[in-house]
Amino acid sequence: MPRSPFEWIEEQARARARAGLVRTLRPRPADSALLDLAGNDYLGLARHPEVTEGAARAARTWGAGATGSRLVSGSTELHAELELELAEFCGFEAALVLSSGYAANLAAVTALAPHGSLIVSDAGNHASLIDGCRLARGTTQVVAHADPDAVRKALDTRTGPAIVVSDTVFSVDGDAAPLRALAAACREAGTPPGEADGTREPGASGASGRSGAGLLLDDAHGLGVVGEGGRGAAWAAGLAGAPDVVTTVTLSKSLGSQGGAVLGPAHVIDHLVNAARTFIFDTGLAPAAAGAALAALRLLRGEPQRAARARAVATALYERLTAEGLEAVRPDAAVVSVRAPSPEQALRWAARCRAAGLAVGCFRPPSVPDGVSRLRLTARADLTDEQLDRAVNVLTEARR
Amino acid sequence: MPRSPFEWIEEQARARARAGLVRTLRPRPADSALLDLAGNDYLGLARHPEVTEGAARAARTWGAGATGSRLVSGSTELHAELELELAEFCGFEAALVLSSGYAANLAAVTALAPHGSLIVSDAGNHASLIDGCRLARGTTQVVAHADPDAVRKALDTRTGPAIVVSDTVFSVDGDAAPLRALAAACREAGTPPGEADGTREPGASGASGRSGAGLLLDDAHGLGVVGEGGRGAAWAAGLAGAPDVVTTVTLSKSLGSQGGAVLGPAHVIDHLVNAARTFIFDTGLAPAAAGAALAALRLLRGEPQRAARARAVATALYERLTAEGLEAVRPDAAVVSVRAPSPEQALRWAARCRAAGLAVGCFRPPSVPDGVSRLRLTARADLTDEQLDRAVNVLTEARR
Repeated sequence: MPRSPFEWIEEQARARARAGLVRTLRPRPADSALLDLAGNDYLGLARHPEVTEGAARAARTWGAGATGSRLVSGSTELHAELELELAEFCGFEAALVLSSGYAANLAAVTALAPHGSLIVSDAGNHASLIDGCRLARGTTQVVAHADPDAVRKALDTRTGPAIVVSDTVFSVDGDAAPLRALAAACREAGTPPGEADGTREPGASGASGRSGAGLLLDDAHGLGVVGEGGRGAAWAAGLAGAPDVVTTVTLSKSLGSQGGAVLGPAHVIDHLVNAARTFIFDTGLAPAAAGAALAALRLLRGEPQRAARARAVATALYERLTAEGLEAVRPDAAVVSVRAPSPEQALRWAARCRAAGLAVGCFRPPSVPDGVSRLRLTARADLTDEQLDRAVNVLTEARR
Repeated sequence: MPRSPFEWIEEQARARARAGLVRTLRPRPADSALLDLAGNDYLGLARHPEVTEGAARAARTWGAGATGSRLVSGSTELHAELELELAEFCGFEAALVLSSGYAANLAAVTALAPHGSLIVSDAGNHASLIDGCRLARGTTQVVAHADPDAVRKALDTRTGPAIVVSDTVFSVDGDAAPLRALAAACREAGTPPGEADGTREPGASGASGRSGAGLLLDDAHGLGVVGEGGRGAAWAAGLAGAPDVVTTVTLSKSLGSQGGAVLGPAHVIDHLVNAARTFIFDTGLAPAAAGAALAALRLLRGEPQRAARARAVATALYERLTAEGLEAVRPDAAVVSVRAPSPEQALRWAARCRAAGLAVGCFRPPSVPDGVSRLRLTARADLTDEQLDRAVNVLTEARR
């Protein structure tokens, strides 16, 4: 047999080791004693008995798997129920559930950016949106982070349909996108030159001649945390249900389960059913995941204060950490990002926290867009004040 | 507000309607009376009480969701257990579980085809492999279906690392890839010119200078059906555990659950942990799905005859349908593909079957690579002879 075809992998592994960037899986036990500020279970629902019972009941009633793609045998009435309630809760006309948020983003970007179209993508967007842009037939322009003027300039160059793609809450730093300004930029793009700034009479000549740009928002970190009762960032910005707005959400963060969904006008969702490859060619979401997400959604609807509590815990965490001299980003949702001086120090800091009983996220290159390593903390709604005290103490001590 | 940015979608929808190619979701009830020959639950395990109980128990023990990406908080000991047993069962050194087979294929292709590499891809490959090729930094050459000579020619053009990518059992027609010949082509690519055909002395000059091509196999439709006790197509071809072979499998077909996995040498799996975006940036598989897949795997290990039964049912179905004059492809696993004269007739045929109590898959463009519409039947291991009779009768009657 000839030499291994994967020898080049060894070279990459050595380079990674030299740079201190090796990643290793660390499976956790079911009864971990660690205080978890690493996961995205923002509302503390993943282990809520109604949610786990929702999973168990769905598996027994519908089977452990969907058995096929959604268009063949993988659509159950449970999927339809979840889609209906999710759309209604978030204020959109229709929803489509996929097996992950990643798949939902790939589906939405590729289906909404056909050949000849322009995608304007925020430089801080999540990997799944970036991969969606790479897969789509349209052309992508990456613009500066959270910069509506840059979006406006990019939209000026379009010659066909266009979409603007952005996270609502960025996963690394937990900062929010300027949604109203982005929507305005999208809508101005459909206005004849001069009309938007008032130098020209509205409708003076064929105002109906040009369509605006669509706005595609990834609300993975907004759902359940941002907006009235956790209805999401689009709702909070008055954009939910607008004919030019589509959002994606995950079922795996605030809803404590697995999966993703695309929300938007019914005709856009129908289009995805017919055109989105990661929807058409993927097995449907497992009934247990759909059942758990539905149970979590109903809990959230009945206990809207959970969303506010997650935000309050995040703010408290941020204020107390900055008071201790740590450099953190003011949180717009439940993610609190704290800067570390280097990848090595980030890793050591996180390891010391772990040794002291606190699990935190440690984000290093290449998982951070700007190359800056961070500890990433998530403020769960179910953290007690005592746990908050402990987290602040451990983080401060472990830095030294 | 300007005109809708999604007007172009309406034009596509009208064109689709004119071509008779509109797809609509049809959610099924939990207690459907239809005889199911549409799903991919090849071993009839999705509703097996040990499998659904595996899902329920895992949700209760570990929570409804993994709570985060596998490298942050989403790896449980349950995931590790599943990975260990899956690798062992299929004869590979290591395994990595992802949230879907789609994600597993995107992960494997992108991580194994860096910039400057060549991907040789079978023209009949699944959408997820095709999207993996589009996402990868390497260059893709699509070659004729199941044609090792075409693979050999394509490999001659490479200037860097190369992988050959193929389904083991093609999802539309259920035919098998020529795995041994593909592996030979991959290995010959690492042999100096002339040596492979015997016109040159082996090792005459620097035989160690060139590495072979890697072989990446998607065994989604092979696992649980093909090979001794359902250990998969790589096992059956004597390729399991080879240093130059990587396979992907789904947990959502024979194992009746949801998810996917990549199997291969440990250093390749470590590479994926560090480099595969759809692994790194996706929430881990829900514990319920991991628990169900593990329960199904253990059932299969204890009852290896299930795999042979699925193949026998497929062969019987094929033989009886062709005896009735239908045009079908001889099945190499559990998928039996029957040709239809047109998309419209395929749709009518499937609808008549459904009205007579039989659910079958109806594959039409653009979901078929060659534009030929088909009914796609899946031969479950748990079909009784009586159900088989009924299926053949309904299919034959409904065609008229």
